[in-house]
Amino acid sequence: MAHIALDEHVPGLPSLLAFRPETSGPLMALAETLLRGESPLSRGERELIAAYVSELNGCRFCAGSHGACAAVQLPGGADLVRQVHADLAAAPISDKLKALLGIAGAVQRGGREVGEAHLAPARAAGATDVEIHDTVLIAAAFCMYNRYVDGLATATPADPAAYAEIGEHLAARGYAER
Amino acid sequence: MAHIALDEHVPGLPSLLAFRPETSGPLMALAETLLRGESPLSRGERELIAAYVSELNGCRFCAGSHGACAAVQLPGGADLVRQVHADLAAAPISDKLKALLGIAGAVQRGGREVGEAHLAPARAAGATDVEIHDTVLIAAAFCMYNRYVDGLATATPADPAAYAEIGEHLAARGYAER
Repeated sequence: MAHIALDEHVPGLPSLLAFRPETSGPLMALAETLLRGESPLSRGERELIAAYVSELNGCRFCAGSHGACAAVQLPGGADLVRQVHADLAAAPISDKLKALLGIAGAVQRGGREVGEAHLAPARAAGATDVEIHDTVLIAAAFCMYNRYVDGLATATPADPAAYAEIGEHLAARGYAER
Repeated sequence: MAHIALDEHVPGLPSLLAFRPETSGPLMALAETLLRGESPLSRGERELIAAYVSELNGCRFCAGSHGACAAVQLPGGADLVRQVHADLAAAPISDKLKALLGIAGAVQRGGREVGEAHLAPARAAGATDVEIHDTVLIAAAFCMYNRYVDGLATATPADPAAYAEIGEHLAARGYAER
């Protein structure tokens, strides 16, 4: 049961957006800008960063939803998302994306955890300042969304099909409309 | 030195807003809504929650700025902010605000850290669901802003007068304009 009076038939973040419409607009505008706005990182790559950080934070709703959304938009699909979560170093992705996910993992632990050990491999693999910026901000933002969703104990679907449906919807329609 | 090419004469978050104007709008709209929009919590109380979480995250820029902004808007001023940071249990604030700051501290550690041990004292002191919601979301949001500011190693003023000036500005003008 959620910590506050949410509609238990609505899972995760959507239940919070319905509870407090005043804050839903800025939260969704931020997600739309970060994950689908103009960026040198593809939408699939950005969803993968969001899913990876959510997995590290143990947020099942966000990891499931954004993992499914990444799977729709990346050639490797759901298998690739699983490989990244299980063993980032061995996952079949570019050195640049691997290094950016390494930066995201450091951000998940704390802002001051990010150092040259994370930045040097990213720069060596050709990551630009904007790519590093967007990675840090997406990782930081999911440290917010994850805490918001779990900090109020929102409902978490158990059925993987629910996440597949959310992922398809997000990939097709995004975050601006509800 | 910052991890990316920021204007080193501009400190903290403002240097990031100038670097990537595309994301600055949603980030500032969120801050304005959370810290100054309609809420049963006063602006000073909300700034205190932001400052407390930033202090726990070791983010000097955010703790300094929001601590100064809280000090301007709370009767206890800067002394009260210092007392809350140094020893929450002993600080001269209401039981309700103390319990809400306890929830914020749990959110800082992780969303799944929030439990009845934090919620029961808040409810016993009269906290409503909206007050609990707003506390969790503000705490979660500062886990984002702190990681963004420190994850890219933005410049941090050493002079306390710089934070006093930022705090006065934020209290008077807010986050919508820059």
